[in-house]
Amino acid sequence: MSLRCFRTGPLETVRPGAKITLERAEETHLFRILRAQPGETVGLLDGLGFLAEAEILPGRILQVSCVREIPVPQKRIHLYIAPPRRQKMDIVLRQCTELGVWRIVPVLCEFGISEPDSSSVAGRWTDALFEACKQSGNPFLPEAAAPLKFADSLADAAKHCKRLFYGSVDSGAEVHFDSGDAAWFVGPEGGFSPSELAALKTAAEPLRIGGWILRVETAAAAGTAVLSALR
Amino acid sequence: MSLRCFRTGPLETVRPGAKITLERAEETHLFRILRAQPGETVGLLDGLGFLAEAEILPGRILQVSCVREIPVPQKRIHLYIAPPRRQKMDIVLRQCTELGVWRIVPVLCEFGISEPDSSSVAGRWTDALFEACKQSGNPFLPEAAAPLKFADSLADAAKHCKRLFYGSVDSGAEVHFDSGDAAWFVGPEGGFSPSELAALKTAAEPLRIGGWILRVETAAAAGTAVLSALR
Repeated sequence: MSLRCFRTGPLETVRPGAKITLERAEETHLFRILRAQPGETVGLLDGLGFLAEAEILPGRILQVSCVREIPVPQKRIHLYIAPPRRQKMDIVLRQCTELGVWRIVPVLCEFGISEPDSSSVAGRWTDALFEACKQSGNPFLPEAAAPLKFADSLADAAKHCKRLFYGSVDSGAEVHFDSGDAAWFVGPEGGFSPSELAALKTAAEPLRIGGWILRVETAAAAGTAVLSALR
Repeated sequence: MSLRCFRTGPLETVRPGAKITLERAEETHLFRILRAQPGETVGLLDGLGFLAEAEILPGRILQVSCVREIPVPQKRIHLYIAPPRRQKMDIVLRQCTELGVWRIVPVLCEFGISEPDSSSVAGRWTDALFEACKQSGNPFLPEAAAPLKFADSLADAAKHCKRLFYGSVDSGAEVHFDSGDAAWFVGPEGGFSPSELAALKTAAEPLRIGGWILRVETAAAAGTAVLSALR
């Protein structure tokens, strides 16, 4: 059974024996809702690749017993997604974090239905991503990038990633991908526009995920999982 | 743009030119909610691998213009899952149908929280699966099997599938799977019990899906997608 994890600031310079306190929301959760008691052990996670264990002392103090640095994964999936409405986007944020997505870039597409502003991405999205990190034990908080227009998203992907992929049920190509950064493009419910699709076909490789039409949230999770699993 | 699909009875013996009517719920949806008019074209799907197109005639009659038989997929994923609560199970049914799952078997595990009876599986689950078929264009309605106890589920999987898999973040094994039937075991939120896990380790192969703890619905969809994508 893995430890229940709580969010902290950077752990890189924290040494065993250090005493720390949690931020208010985390402290409330641990002590008021879970009614944790001195002597119990909890996990700590900074979202930057460090995990710690700590023992609860009296006075809501946590004493760190060990800190581990998790190696950065060999593959990093960058999800470029035309955001669906809020409830579905929450599923995307949660499932893709569990699956280890590295970075999420909201893309403003012609047929898109939701245009998140930078502040909600930095605020609400990042909180949801951190919650999913705590649940899943993923020590790397995915970066929630600022929204980009479709054309700019292609340039951004080419800058960050050596491989770019989009979903195509018609593709029979066998895809190999064993390390590095890959971009996974997911369009809105209404699909990419003809001109967006033409641009993707020029700039990116087709990846077949099953044979049928996927909803946005299914495409996001399945693509992240498949690109992570391919060799 | 693909046609909007509606559920029909078996299409195998239906020939172009045949006139058919929809069942009440489908008819209500097409004519009352979508206000379809004579002259429009719709898709028809029987869940048995046949797709048709039909033109709407006056009097809520549909005239079939063509029928296609879709080849049975080379890989068939059988999802053995300890069902989560209803809302999450609905996500599983929808996402896995979009991803082409072949069969879903509810498994009663020691730490399971939901024990669906056979009638709700045959009724509510199958309706949800058919809705997802219509949305995604998947012509093969996944079979919703009767619930099995964990021990019986292993025997059932060995009977139906040549390969059995369970999730393991510790596994470094490179998995190949290019055709045939595969079972994908997904435990409850609380995980498989030690004895269940021991039995799985004997009977099935580990499959690594990312490196972190997956919720039930993420594991179901990601495993279906990854097993479908592996060669």
